[in-house]
Formats: sequence, structure tokens, C-alpha cells
Amino acid sequence: MDNPVLVEVTRGPLVESRHRGAVSVVDADGGVLMSLGDVDLPVFPRSAVKALQILPMVHSGAAERLGLTDAEIALAVSSHFGEPAHVATARAMLEKARCDVGCLECGAHWPMDPAAARALAAAGGTPSALHNNCSGKHAGFLCLACDLGEDPKGYVRADHRVQGIVRASLEDLTGASHTPDVQAVDGCSIPTYAVPLPSLAYGFAKFGTGVGLSPDCKRAAARIRRAAAAHPFMVAGTGHFDTVLMEALAERAFVKTGAEGVYCAALPGSGLGIALKCDDGASRAAQAVLAALILRFLELDGPERATVEALARPRLTNWNGIEVGEIRTTDALVTPL
Amino acid sequence: MDNPVLVEVTRGPLVESRHRGAVSVVDADGGVLMSLGDVDLPVFPRSAVKALQILPMVHSGAAERLGLTDAEIALAVSSHFGEPAHVATARAMLEKARCDVGCLECGAHWPMDPAAARALAAAGGTPSALHNNCSGKHAGFLCLACDLGEDPKGYVRADHRVQGIVRASLEDLTGASHTPDVQAVDGCSIPTYAVPLPSLAYGFAKFGTGVGLSPDCKRAAARIRRAAAAHPFMVAGTGHFDTVLMEALAERAFVKTGAEGVYCAALPGSGLGIALKCDDGASRAAQAVLAALILRFLELDGPERATVEALARPRLTNWNGIEVGEIRTTDALVTPL
Repeated sequence: MDNPVLVEVTRGPLVESRHRGAVSVVDADGGVLMSLGDVDLPVFPRSAVKALQILPMVHSGAAERLGLTDAEIALAVSSHFGEPAHVATARAMLEKARCDVGCLECGAHWPMDPAAARALAAAGGTPSALHNNCSGKHAGFLCLACDLGEDPKGYVRADHRVQGIVRASLEDLTGASHTPDVQAVDGCSIPTYAVPLPSLAYGFAKFGTGVGLSPDCKRAAARIRRAAAAHPFMVAGTGHFDTVLMEALAERAFVKTGAEGVYCAALPGSGLGIALKCDDGASRAAQAVLAALILRFLELDGPERATVEALARPRLTNWNGIEVGEIRTTDALVTPL
Repeated sequence: MDNPVLVEVTRGPLVESRHRGAVSVVDADGGVLMSLGDVDLPVFPRSAVKALQILPMVHSGAAERLGLTDAEIALAVSSHFGEPAHVATARAMLEKARCDVGCLECGAHWPMDPAAARALAAAGGTPSALHNNCSGKHAGFLCLACDLGEDPKGYVRADHRVQGIVRASLEDLTGASHTPDVQAVDGCSIPTYAVPLPSLAYGFAKFGTGVGLSPDCKRAAARIRRAAAAHPFMVAGTGHFDTVLMEALAERAFVKTGAEGVYCAALPGSGLGIALKCDDGASRAAQAVLAALILRFLELDGPERATVEALARPRLTNWNGIEVGEIRTTDALVTPL
């Protein structure tokens, strides 16, 4: 099945590039509100499910026992851009877990934000695992290991108790089997499991509403949503899509990007969960699609609408600031289903 | 018409992302050797046609009169990564044109190579137009303006004499009309014109063989090809695709990337021109497709084949160096036509 073109990138009078993809929007009862493209094809959600992966660390009580702040919980579900406040927050989480940077098994890379990378280089620094965009989540895993009294070594491995708990959370929320035949290794070395988009959307509808969750789990989901809404900077970084969107919408939308063109989102007010994947893995397209879905499924006031519309249809400028084209979503996302 | 999937990106046991595209391979008589996808759709070649854009600067005799070196001519057809040697070479070209960095109208940006950008920041530097990946071509345009005795100001505008000459070269080589209805603004502010892939491939078959070109133009094309083969570092940068490929194949292949998933190439030995566009604009896919086409259309010895095969099927590793998947081309590129 050919997925529909969801995004066009224009240059002057013509369409220069096209992005296809699939979308699923469901409610917490599993009711389907939107289904575009081949939604049965398993998709690696990558970092888009960090909130579901970190849920056990919160609902087990570990976050409370270790005294994690909302900013730290927001970082635990982030793909951060390696700005100094992200690094400092990850370091503080490690201290609470009685760990240090040497315990992180995510690997080191220069900050994802180019300006942050240059600033680090200009200060004579080099990147550590704290700069890894997943260091907050990994610090969260170490908090869970610490609280369980488990040896944290090897916490990224599928056969470590931490990843067993994480996998159980993903299966519980999405209802999908997370079996070895759909298992691969993520960028930060933990397992990632491919599941169909409706399962991911269903998991986020439950995460956003608490429907079908245990009381502890429901409270934990609400705390994570509140933490991200209170600290949208921690979830991504200065000027980046998820941060800008959650700065505008606060608790009305929890959104999270994943590598290779994935987004998951929860719209608690309307009870909806969203999952989408662009075939080609393009972030620019996944962002525009997510913004278009929010325009469709969330009632917005004037300023909110202006922010989200700008994210759904960004103008493209060149090195001289001349407008050369735009990224725009197609009618596939707005026509009646 | 839906273009075929040309590239798959795997993760563990599954395909994670897919790239579609169109390909045209023709000879200098216009004979079609390969045609995949909707090749009639006009494509902005962007930087992939820099060699054709800079041809008039060479065949007019300007390059010789100003004493441009082969390294400078290679930089003039480059999308360079902003390493110090690129910047120094662009500066030397400007001096020969009796211009300075203030004459460049391409805009400034940090070096495209992240390590070069960090090194510049660490040295306390800031980017100028010399670091723009197109500064070599723009310096070449200024050489042409200088040699013509034209005021260089506004040389990026479609109505400047330099761009008129560039447009005529593109029309002459490709045989396609470069009219306002297919005109847009490129990243470096010069006009870019969308034309069908077979026209671009035809232009590169002529560029690679000299068939159908005036004697001056044929000599100029040969000089540009020799210059790029002698200085592949100048055409891109350390470890980057075009540089690695031309280091391996020298004068047997002239290849040039363009933004938004475009490649043009000339294989002088077999008399072929290649043009391709990935629908979604992904460089990783365009690179793999180009390498697969070279494997198909060029006789390679063992070491050459090993280099090109690695470029056609790169292994993907994560931040810990663990292999997580690969980029691979599909059977669409190898099945009989």
C-alpha cells in the first residue's frame, strides 16, 4: 500500500520535494478517529515513547523517593539539545541515583543544537554522555535501578531488569507485543520495538487520560504531563519544535518526536492519542504533520492557533533571509474521513 | 505516477524508512539507458549543476586570463564543507578577480562540516560568506564579471549579465528551456531552474564527453573534470561522499550533489550522463542511489568496487559504535530495464 503524500516542500512556483506517511488518531477506548496510509506496518517509535518508557520510574514511587523535580522528570522524557541547563539537570539526576556520568551507557555526542555544540567547543569542552540527547532518560533508568537496588551496569540491555520493566510498560500501555522479532537497537543502545501506529496512538490516549491505567500509573502519567508542560525547555531546547509547541499549549498537548520521522502525542482534553510516521524519516515533515493534526483536533484560541499554524507551514528562507519556499501539509490531513 | 522505492533504511530485522525517487541515464546522443519513475517532472538541480554554471567562466578564457589554478576551478564547482583550505582557496580566487569577501552575495553560514564549525568557534572565529558552501562558485562568478569588465554588484540576480550567461550555458548543455515559470531562488540567492531529469543527464553526458560542444567548451569541460579529479577534496571535504568517490575513481566519474536529494554525474569513459532526484530530498538516499548506478554502469577493479559498494550500502552505527542497521538500494536499480 502506498502511503499518501502528507507534506510538500515548495520552491518558488513549484513543489520541490514530497513526504509520504501514515497517521493514526484514536481515543482511549480504541475508537479510531483518523487513519491514513498503511497503519498496520510496524513502526519503531524510537524516542517518541520516552514518556511510556519512563512511566515505571515515576509510578513505582522511585521519582518521589529520590526527590526528582518536575524539571528532572521533563528531562527524563526528553530528546534534549545539549544546552548547559540540560546537562546540569542530567548531572543532578545522576547524583540522586548515587551514580555519575560513567554509569551512563548511552554514548557521547556533541550537543544536537549546533550553537550549543559550538559554544562547548569555544569553551574548550568536549562532549560526554551527559550531552547525549537521551541522557535524561538514561539518568531516569539509573534512578529506577538505584531505587530497585539493582546493579545499574548493563541497564541498556534487553535482559536487564530495568529494560524488562520498561518493556512491560510499553506492552501494557500500547497493548502490542514487544517480541524479539520486532526488536532492534536504538541510537542510545536500549532496545526499540516496532509496533503498529494505532497501538502507539492508543498508548498515548491512555497516557493522556489515565483511562485503563492503575491509580498509581494514572497519577504518574499526570505528573509527567504536568512536568513537561511546566518545563517545555527541558523536553527539547531553545526554539525547537516540541518546546515551542508545548510553551504555547502547556498541558493541552504532550508531544514527543522520535528519530526517523515519528511523532507521538496525547491531547488530554479531547482524550485523543496520535501516532505518525513519515516513510522517509524526515523530521521536517513529521513536525508539519503533527502541527496540522493539532490544528484539526484541538480547539485553539487566536495566539495558540497562530503558533501552531506557523509550525504547520514554516516559511523557508535562504542564507540571505530571502523567502524561497515553504513546507505545507496536503489536503490528505484535512479532508473528511 | 508513484516513483519506485529506491532505498531502504533498515534497523535490526526490519525496514525502518523508505526513499522513493526517479533516475535518468542517457548518452550524449540522447539515447536512454535507464529511466525510473516520473522523469518528466521538472526538478530543481540546485548545486548539482555547478559545473555547467561555471563552464562559461572557463570556456570564455576568463579562468586562464586570471590564472586560476586547478584547485580553484575544483572549488568553483564545489559544495564545500567550509574547512580552512576551502576558505583560503575562495579568498585567493576573489583576489584574482580584484574582489574581496564583501563582493560575495551568497550569504554567510557556519561551515557545513560540524567539526570545521566547532574548530572555527573554538578559534574565536565567526562565519563569513567565504564559509558558505557555494563561495567557490560565487568567486567564479566574480571572476567572470571581472574578466567581462562588468560591475559585479547584483551578480546573483537573474537580470545580471553573469546570470544571463550562466542560464545560456544551462540551456545549451541540457537543451531545456530555463524560463521564469520554472525559476526559483537557490540557497545562495542565484536563480535555479527546474528541468526534467533526462535533460540534466543529457547535459552531463555532453559535459563528460564533449559531444555536441564547441571546441572551447569541450576543452573547458575537460579542464573542469581534470581539476575535480585532481582536487576531489575541494569539491566537498574531508570524508564526504563526493570527495571519497572521486578520490577513488578520479577522472572516471565526475559527480556532484545538489540540495534536496539531487545528483548529477558524468561517466566520460562510457559516455553516460546521470541525473537523479529523491522525492523527499534526502541526501543519504541520493548518495546510495548514485553509488549503485556507478556500480551498474562503470567497470570497476577490486579496490574501486569496495569503495563504491561501501558508499552504496553504508552500515549505520549508534553512539556506542554498535551496528544498528544499514542503508541499501532496492532491486529497482539493478533489474533489467
